[in-house]
Amino acid sequence: MNSFGNYFRITTFGESHGPAIGAVIDGCPPGLELSAEDIQAELDLRRPGQSELTTPRKEADRVEILSGVFEEKTLGTPIALIVFNRDMRPYDYAKIKDLYRPGHADYTYQKKYGRRDYRGGGRSSGRETAARVAAGAVARKLLAQKGIQVVSFARMIGGVWLEEAEPKIGDGPAAANVDAGQLAGLRADIYSSKVRCPHKKTAVAMEQAIQWAAEEQDSLGGIVEVRAYGVPAGLGDPVFGKIDARIGQAVLSLGAVKGIEFGHGFKLAEMRGGEANDRFTTGPGASVLPETNRAGGMAGGISTGLPIICRAVVKPTASIGKFQKSVDAAGKAIDLTIEGRHDPCIVIRIVPVVEHMMNLVLIDLYLAQAALQAWT
Amino acid sequence: MNSFGNYFRITTFGESHGPAIGAVIDGCPPGLELSAEDIQAELDLRRPGQSELTTPRKEADRVEILSGVFEEKTLGTPIALIVFNRDMRPYDYAKIKDLYRPGHADYTYQKKYGRRDYRGGGRSSGRETAARVAAGAVARKLLAQKGIQVVSFARMIGGVWLEEAEPKIGDGPAAANVDAGQLAGLRADIYSSKVRCPHKKTAVAMEQAIQWAAEEQDSLGGIVEVRAYGVPAGLGDPVFGKIDARIGQAVLSLGAVKGIEFGHGFKLAEMRGGEANDRFTTGPGASVLPETNRAGGMAGGISTGLPIICRAVVKPTASIGKFQKSVDAAGKAIDLTIEGRHDPCIVIRIVPVVEHMMNLVLIDLYLAQAALQAWT
Amino acid sequence: MNSFGNYFRITTFGESHGPAIGAVIDGCPPGLELSAEDIQAELDLRRPGQSELTTPRKEADRVEILSGVFEEKTLGTPIALIVFNRDMRPYDYAKIKDLYRPGHADYTYQKKYGRRDYRGGGRSSGRETAARVAAGAVARKLLAQKGIQVVSFARMIGGVWLEEAEPKIGDGPAAANVDAGQLAGLRADIYSSKVRCPHKKTAVAMEQAIQWAAEEQDSLGGIVEVRAYGVPAGLGDPVFGKIDARIGQAVLSLGAVKGIEFGHGFKLAEMRGGEANDRFTTGPGASVLPETNRAGGMAGGISTGLPIICRAVVKPTASIGKFQKSVDAAGKAIDLTIEGRHDPCIVIRIVPVVEHMMNLVLIDLYLAQAALQAWT
Amino acid sequence: MNSFGNYFRITTFGESHGPAIGAVIDGCPPGLELSAEDIQAELDLRRPGQSELTTPRKEADRVEILSGVFEEKTLGTPIALIVFNRDMRPYDYAKIKDLYRPGHADYTYQKKYGRRDYRGGGRSSGRETAARVAAGAVARKLLAQKGIQVVSFARMIGGVWLEEAEPKIGDGPAAANVDAGQLAGLRADIYSSKVRCPHKKTAVAMEQAIQWAAEEQDSLGGIVEVRAYGVPAGLGDPVFGKIDARIGQAVLSLGAVKGIEFGHGFKLAEMRGGEANDRFTTGPGASVLPETNRAGGMAGGISTGLPIICRAVVKPTASIGKFQKSVDAAGKAIDLTIEGRHDPCIVIRIVPVVEHMMNLVLIDLYLAQAALQAWT
Repeated sequence: MNSFGNYFRITTFGESHGPAIGAVIDGCPPGLELSAEDIQAELDLRRPGQSELTTPRKEADRVEILSGVFEEKTLGTPIALIVFNRDMRPYDYAKIKDLYRPGHADYTYQKKYGRRDYRGGGRSSGRETAARVAAGAVARKLLAQKGIQVVSFARMIGGVWLEEAEPKIGDGPAAANVDAGQLAGLRADIYSSKVRCPHKKTAVAMEQAIQWAAEEQDSLGGIVEVRAYGVPAGLGDPVFGKIDARIGQAVLSLGAVKGIEFGHGFKLAEMRGGEANDRFTTGPGASVLPETNRAGGMAGGISTGLPIICRAVVKPTASIGKFQKSVDAAGKAIDLTIEGRHDPCIVIRIVPVVEHMMNLVLIDLYLAQAALQAWT
Repeated sequence: MNSFGNYFRITTFGESHGPAIGAVIDGCPPGLELSAEDIQAELDLRRPGQSELTTPRKEADRVEILSGVFEEKTLGTPIALIVFNRDMRPYDYAKIKDLYRPGHADYTYQKKYGRRDYRGGGRSSGRETAARVAAGAVARKLLAQKGIQVVSFARMIGGVWLEEAEPKIGDGPAAANVDAGQLAGLRADIYSSKVRCPHKKTAVAMEQAIQWAAEEQDSLGGIVEVRAYGVPAGLGDPVFGKIDARIGQAVLSLGAVKGIEFGHGFKLAEMRGGEANDRFTTGPGASVLPETNRAGGMAGGISTGLPIICRAVVKPTASIGKFQKSVDAAGKAIDLTIEGRHDPCIVIRIVPVVEHMMNLVLIDLYLAQAALQAWT
Repeated sequence: MNSFGNYFRITTFGESHGPAIGAVIDGCPPGLELSAEDIQAELDLRRPGQSELTTPRKEADRVEILSGVFEEKTLGTPIALIVFNRDMRPYDYAKIKDLYRPGHADYTYQKKYGRRDYRGGGRSSGRETAARVAAGAVARKLLAQKGIQVVSFARMIGGVWLEEAEPKIGDGPAAANVDAGQLAGLRADIYSSKVRCPHKKTAVAMEQAIQWAAEEQDSLGGIVEVRAYGVPAGLGDPVFGKIDARIGQAVLSLGAVKGIEFGHGFKLAEMRGGEANDRFTTGPGASVLPETNRAGGMAGGISTGLPIICRAVVKPTASIGKFQKSVDAAGKAIDLTIEGRHDPCIVIRIVPVVEHMMNLVLIDLYLAQAALQAWT
Repeated sequence: MNSFGNYFRITTFGESHGPAIGAVIDGCPPGLELSAEDIQAELDLRRPGQSELTTPRKEADRVEILSGVFEEKTLGTPIALIVFNRDMRPYDYAKIKDLYRPGHADYTYQKKYGRRDYRGGGRSSGRETAARVAAGAVARKLLAQKGIQVVSFARMIGGVWLEEAEPKIGDGPAAANVDAGQLAGLRADIYSSKVRCPHKKTAVAMEQAIQWAAEEQDSLGGIVEVRAYGVPAGLGDPVFGKIDARIGQAVLSLGAVKGIEFGHGFKLAEMRGGEANDRFTTGPGASVLPETNRAGGMAGGISTGLPIICRAVVKPTASIGKFQKSVDAAGKAIDLTIEGRHDPCIVIRIVPVVEHMMNLVLIDLYLAQAALQAWT
């Protein structure tokens, strides 16, 4: 099950230490201007090695478009995107061949398939998400044409929270029609921060926390928030295709994500109906508009027209330099120290991935709704 | 998108106030003993009107099996399950035809489809989940044959928490092979409680909280926990079919659920890698066993052999007797009081539904893995 | 795999001698006027027992709509259609329990599933197609709104051919925009004929052939032709969704169909490229129009705007009164005489089914193309 | 819809004159020995330019495996196969940009998408089938492990028929368990023939017919037959997944195929039930065996254990050197002569493609059945 989406369907392939990773997009509408550079720009935002806070693995990833684009526009046929793996680290794999690293999928892949690519995470590696980002970059271009913009950022890292009033753009009715320029500004702020947090002071504190953990050969987790602005009412599909069900699957399909919540999320559990319900008010031109956005831009799994909001919890990076106990394939106890420098906070790199998973869900639901409305 | 699953695929249909609701199961293996009574027993656990704490709507639901079963065993062909809607309340629908109830999907369905069944929630009603429970009952019988048992219960209602040490069965390595009798006992405790909480004192406090909210014509939410025992290592599929991604989609497709977390969930965001990683230890017969279960029974989206654990947040029931402001379809402000008695805490009825969504995911992944292993 | 279609997806269920058969349609656009009578009218055209030439089994089938329709219009939600089986023949099933009838699927179902509903064909019975007709009736109403009309008829029965010049409406460029009235007339001629052949003299000869076969307790097969008028250019999808691939799957999924050809079909094998190619000519308003229709209304699997034409071969009814040799489940030779009166020519009843399979394919492809064009 | 299969799902991509074509296989079981050479061997059988009878385009195709294989065995993860397009003919595309070639999909792609890759057939080119052959080569290796072998050959080219008694191996009960060596011999005979016909004299006559057509700048079509030996009883799935429905979709998804028939196919239309039914007889060890194979190895769409047999009609190559009338995009009449040397009989190259489509269908159904039996 390496495909996702019904109308805009992506299929990803590739192991972290195999020849290449890539994605095939089936269902992209024809006529979209698309170049490798468009995609490269998004890949570069995910790329590690951009600061001392992330993994030093140099992934000088170059994406190539192998099909589906002609004279710089999409054809409507499958778009194959490929990134060759260049950083084939010389590494003594014999040492790790029979080890199960704590927090990794070595053991479970071995149980599932009876074998695995032990040179790294293989298919379970975070590297696979580069293929999703490449596909998401195409979705992003399509959505931009319809005024839909997704932004994501670190809401918390290692206990340091970006306060609730941030980012200033908000997520209520006032933000329903925020302009593209403001969002571009917010996105620039996010990516100019090493930790993908748009508020400078908070970002500094987060950086500090990461450094402390790194010094102890340990790692941090955090919370990524993602918001979609400009989403029209009516996206999402009963009953298994609810917008939150689809986003949930998409975001939980990232290995390090261990939970997700929409709108006020877990806080809603302690609220009463009278407080939790989003009431309606009169919008522009006698339209109907939810007055509040506690439900995260949806009702009954269908978008209301307010921003879609969700937060995903990211566990701390599993690979740490610190000594850990484990066992080998024969069940024998071993002392494990994973060599090399590690990524002390995977949240940084997951921020753009979560954004693109949202892009992929939204384009799929947008095309579904377009089909429905084309008839009626 | 009213279907779910690949190998054991269910399709549900029906509006809350239409002639019937139902489900078609495609992919159930042949030879399973199955009667309407088996399914009825599970439906009865979800049925409202069982105590003064739930909606008084009498759903004397009787399920019928229309196909796929012959001489009391499944044939391998589609199993159609149907429940006729009997409680057609005489209600002056003219009054609510043009209203959008806060917290409901009236407005979003109207935007999506241009029309809706305004006699109730229609397709967005919680009643649709009865069809899922019916299908889940079949999944449950199949899983029981393989030693897999799912239990769910209220972890929190209206701020009253079942403490962490409960239920006693636990979720670590010791619980990997808990026996069926113990789990049956736990399930009996859960369903003998009006609030689906297996610990008596906590249950009493939850009941009290619900009564207070009900007296104020208001409603409560909470947290449902679900655990799957006896799940073998190797279920789940890279990369979009990760076990948590699939459970996430399944559970978030319930209208009242606004978030989900696995294992230590949101708490993992504040932990360090060294604390969060589940290390491996030597299991029985020189096997490998995770020592802890912080990740909720999985690694890289594939089951480890420890219990699968997740928690879902349920927002308070949207229908409340309390006065609320809203607008009508013309955008005109109105004062809304929803007549009748309401379900003051939907958590109670969602407990069995969450269990059956887990059953549906697990049977689907089990059959997928069986196919894989049948080859190799 | 009891579902068909991607945008307009049907799932059928039911055994011939179980409680009911039915279909669930997922993806029907909202706002279509739809009543049980609309569907009943199409079912009645398929119903046996209409003349002495078909099976005497009385299927006084009454279809019910269980969901997806409100105030006589579709809601956009799943439409469940059900037909209860009323003709539960008292029959001594013990006799046939261990027999494998020649030409039937008794043996293969037994091998596949290890058991079967031996009271009749079960899921493999032609009766299952009533559910498809019910769903096809909905597709037909939708297509009519877009000017697309499908007609099917017997091209040959038992060696008696309807000559090539018939029906008069033709299938070339002149017929691209034939009016609805003419097609309604053709359809009326087809269904006023006992053998579903629009040409009276040919129909009489076909009837005669059937009677002769029936007198000898034997059965006939034939060829069904189906044509879709008013199909716009651009339907069909590369590469596995070619219009002929989709129609092929749909029509070959009927148990008695053993082959299908498009346009000049098997005759093309003996032609040269210069003869076989459909050249283009100038159509109305400087448009482009194929000059001929040898390819059956398509090129590269995508519709050209000319009528879609295909022919399916129907094997003679497997159930015959004539004595046949066979073996029982234990491999012991037996002499088999199937009691009761049989349907001497299944072609008659397959004519409307083939029409509706075409309707189901076309609505699915139409919605796909609408989605594509909605974007661009 | 560029994917095919449920359990062994392939997705193909690529335009004939773009950078590359390829396929991603999702669902290949782990542990299969697989090298690029295995796949290359099958691609070479399809490759043009092997004799003077096929297109002179040199496709020195080299396939690369980009993922899913580690230490020369499959991992169970997606296998990406890629063939870079090397023969970028210098060609004045401006000339053909606005032309619609008769018999090609230029016009229909333009209507569907509003644009197309006019440098050749693009996605509709026969070149896309190389990706299918690459995927089919993997399926073939898997099937061989289970004793299933598929062979295809030219049954007729340009009116020259291979007589019915050929190939000698037959398709009745005696051939149910033909040994692998005999089939390897048959396959060697087929591919040692320039026209893929295993009978030498017939092959010579077919070659002659092709040469005559080529001399007149014209082309020939024909009939490809494909047989699957060693298929166990029980493959195929009610009701839309019937083995013939699946093979029908697969084979009709080849652009040049205009019809397909199973077993006695169109001849069954003129037979009576008493003649057409396959009766059962006692097989080895008191087993049940069909006595004849008129239905092509299936009953009710499920395999009987006898060889699967079908024949596909291939229209003559659309590209011919001969002068043809056509129109341009503006509807203006033009005189068209397609430059270059053309493939005078596409049947030759379709033979291996049809074989591999059958391989793809059978592995998919085999895995489905393995899943079913794994349970029971």
